[in-house]
This record gives sequence, C-alpha cells and structure tokens, in this order.
Amino acid sequence: MTANPSPDIEFWFEFGSNYSYLSVMRIEDVAQRCGVNVAWKPFLLGPIFRALGMETSPFILQKEKGAYMWQDMVRQCRKYGLRWTKPSTFPRLGVLPARIALLGADQPWIAAFCRQVMELNFVLDQDINQPERLEPILSALGLPSVDILDQAQAEPIRTRLREQTDEARARGIFGAPTFFVGAEMFWGNDRLDDALLLASETSREGAVARR
Amino acid sequence: MTANPSPDIEFWFEFGSNYSYLSVMRIEDVAQRCGVNVAWKPFLLGPIFRALGMETSPFILQKEKGAYMWQDMVRQCRKYGLRWTKPSTFPRLGVLPARIALLGADQPWIAAFCRQVMELNFVLDQDINQPERLEPILSALGLPSVDILDQAQAEPIRTRLREQTDEARARGIFGAPTFFVGAEMFWGNDRLDDALLLASETSREGAVARR
Repeated sequence: MTANPSPDIEFWFEFGSNYSYLSVMRIEDVAQRCGVNVAWKPFLLGPIFRALGMETSPFILQKEKGAYMWQDMVRQCRKYGLRWTKPSTFPRLGVLPARIALLGADQPWIAAFCRQVMELNFVLDQDINQPERLEPILSALGLPSVDILDQAQAEPIRTRLREQTDEARARGIFGAPTFFVGAEMFWGNDRLDDALLLASETSREGAVARR
Repeated sequence: MTANPSPDIEFWFEFGSNYSYLSVMRIEDVAQRCGVNVAWKPFLLGPIFRALGMETSPFILQKEKGAYMWQDMVRQCRKYGLRWTKPSTFPRLGVLPARIALLGADQPWIAAFCRQVMELNFVLDQDINQPERLEPILSALGLPSVDILDQAQAEPIRTRLREQTDEARARGIFGAPTFFVGAEMFWGNDRLDDALLLASETSREGAVARR
C-alpha cells in the first residue's frame, strides 16, 4: 500500500460572512479528526452578490431573513461553544484580511490567522479592514507583519483575489461558506460535516484502490 | 408530580417546498422519540414570497441557488434514506392538500396524509392539487374522502388557510419548513433537531417546576 495523499476539502469563505465565522472556527479541528486536508479559499462575496443582481447581503436586503439570522447565530454559537457579539457594522468589508489569507493559504499559520480575524469581527466587533488591526495578529503569530501587509496591498495579490473571486463565481458559488469535495459543492456551515464525510470516504476508497 | 402536558413544536410547512418534504417525512418519528407533540401548520409560500417582493421561489429566481439545491436534495435524501425524484414541475401548487391538512391538523391521520402527498410530489412526480389524486390517499387511510374533499373546497376552510398564511407572514416566516418552540423560530429542515431539543428541554424544565 502506497502513501495515501491527503484528500482535500476546498473551503471558500469571506471574513464579513457570519456563517463563515462558524466554519472558520471549527474546520481545522474537525478536518484533522477526519484526516482531511483543508484548502483555504478566501474570496469576496460583494462582487458575487452584485453579479447575481443584489446590492448587498441578502440578510440586509430581506429584513425578515436578517432578523432570523441574528437569532440563529446566538443559538449556533452557543451550540458550538463560540463567543458571539452581533457586529455593529454588517457586513464588514474584509478585503485586506482576504488578501493576507490568500498570501498565507498554504502556510501553517492560515487557520489561526483566519480565526483571529473572525473573532475581531464577530467577538470584538472591530473593523477588520485596517492594517493597524491586523498587524498585532500577524506579530503575535511570530510573522513579519510589515512585509506581509506590504505584499497584501501590492498589485499581484490584489489581482489574485479578483481572480479567485471570479473563479468562485464561475463555479456557481452564491454564498459563504461553500465547500467543494471534487466537483460536489456544499453550501453553508450546516453542510461542513457532510462535506468532510465525503472527503474522508473518497480518501478511504482511494487508499483501497491503490493497494 | 402532576401529568406532564406534551410540549409543542409548531411545524409550518408547504407541500410545494422540497425542504418541507424532508421534514414532513421525518418529523413524526423524531418528535415521538423526543416526547414532543407536533402542531401541524400548513400554509402557502406563494403569498409570502409575493409579500417579500418575489414573484416565485428563490430557487427559480436565483438560478445558481436552484442548481445547487437540486444537488443538495439528492444527497439529503440519501442521508435520510428517502426516495427522491426531481419534480418535473417546480414549485407545484399545493393549495388543495394544504386545505385538507388544515382540516386534519389535529387528527391522527395528519402525518400519514402529509407524507403521502409529499411522496406524490417528490417521489411519484405527480400533480398534488387535483381531487382525483388526493382521493385515493384519503380512502386508503380509511377516511370519508368525498366529505373531506367537499369541506376542503368550501369557503370556511379557504378562509382559514388564508388566515393561517397571514399569520405565518405576521410571525416573520419567510420560507419553509419553519419551526416554532414558544417564541423561538427555527428555519429549515437543518434546524429540526435543534428545535426538538429545545422543545424537550422546555418540557423537562416544566415538569421539574410542577413537582
């Protein structure tokens, strides 16, 4: 039996998205327990919503759904043991942290960085799009924060984030979080466990086939 | 200790709604296991969508979300062990079965009737709004089908269904299935288990308080 390459789940998320908060906080731990490798895919929902004919989040456009969502978040955070503060600004612009996450997508610090940005938004209720808010997070992770912030604001990474958002759109993503296991798309934190199950089954079948 | 009155979960559903199909098929069994009593609340989504500024189902209006939903239904039905056929007409008008369900909401046959109408739509791919399709279901349940169909098409029950749909709107319902446990609203088949958990906890607390 040859070595079993880690199966992948693609995790498409946006820092302004409250349901992405739930998945960002959970995914590293649950994926590890399933033996599944996570491919982190930050993107921007704004351009997706606009392409679908919406000016902003459906939670703003449809006030009944928005009112419900805030109730649901309180219960969901209690269920997962996560802290929760309703952000005073919603949805918050998260372009800068998305660029940093794109830079760090394959780095060992990606999960911890994303969790801390999410907590800045959904626990500490702070602006997440300012270099001075993100610098302490990067520094505390032992990273060269000035270099990373410079790279994140330079043209190549700006272009890559636009391309990654275009890819999200092309693949039929209409909200966040969204997961892919091969061609199978799963939408919403409620589907994370189903997606991981498929990823780990795919892995076992692959392992058997390679024996 | 006095007798413990059954706690209630209100189950708001619509026969044309695919995610309502999942909950209709599951709820009697899972609620019984939790010791929770189900209050069946048929209503119509059409007037709700129109009141929210939508001509029809969001799955039709937003084609990306619709395309995803059909994928999701295949997997969800597999997960719950339910049969599944993508209906050739969607969403199907389900006014007549909703009127019958309103008539029978407190009757012992309500759950079985609703499951069979849902299977007519989402397994057998048949029109659910025709008396000749519903008559055999009622007869097989040992019910006076002609009487029930007459009553269901008379003015009093038509008015009651309009009122029940108005109540859904007034309570902030924007989709189906929706569950209420007291004032707490839960949207979507994905929240059925959370809603039942709350209903059964509420019941235990009530029982303790009455000792």
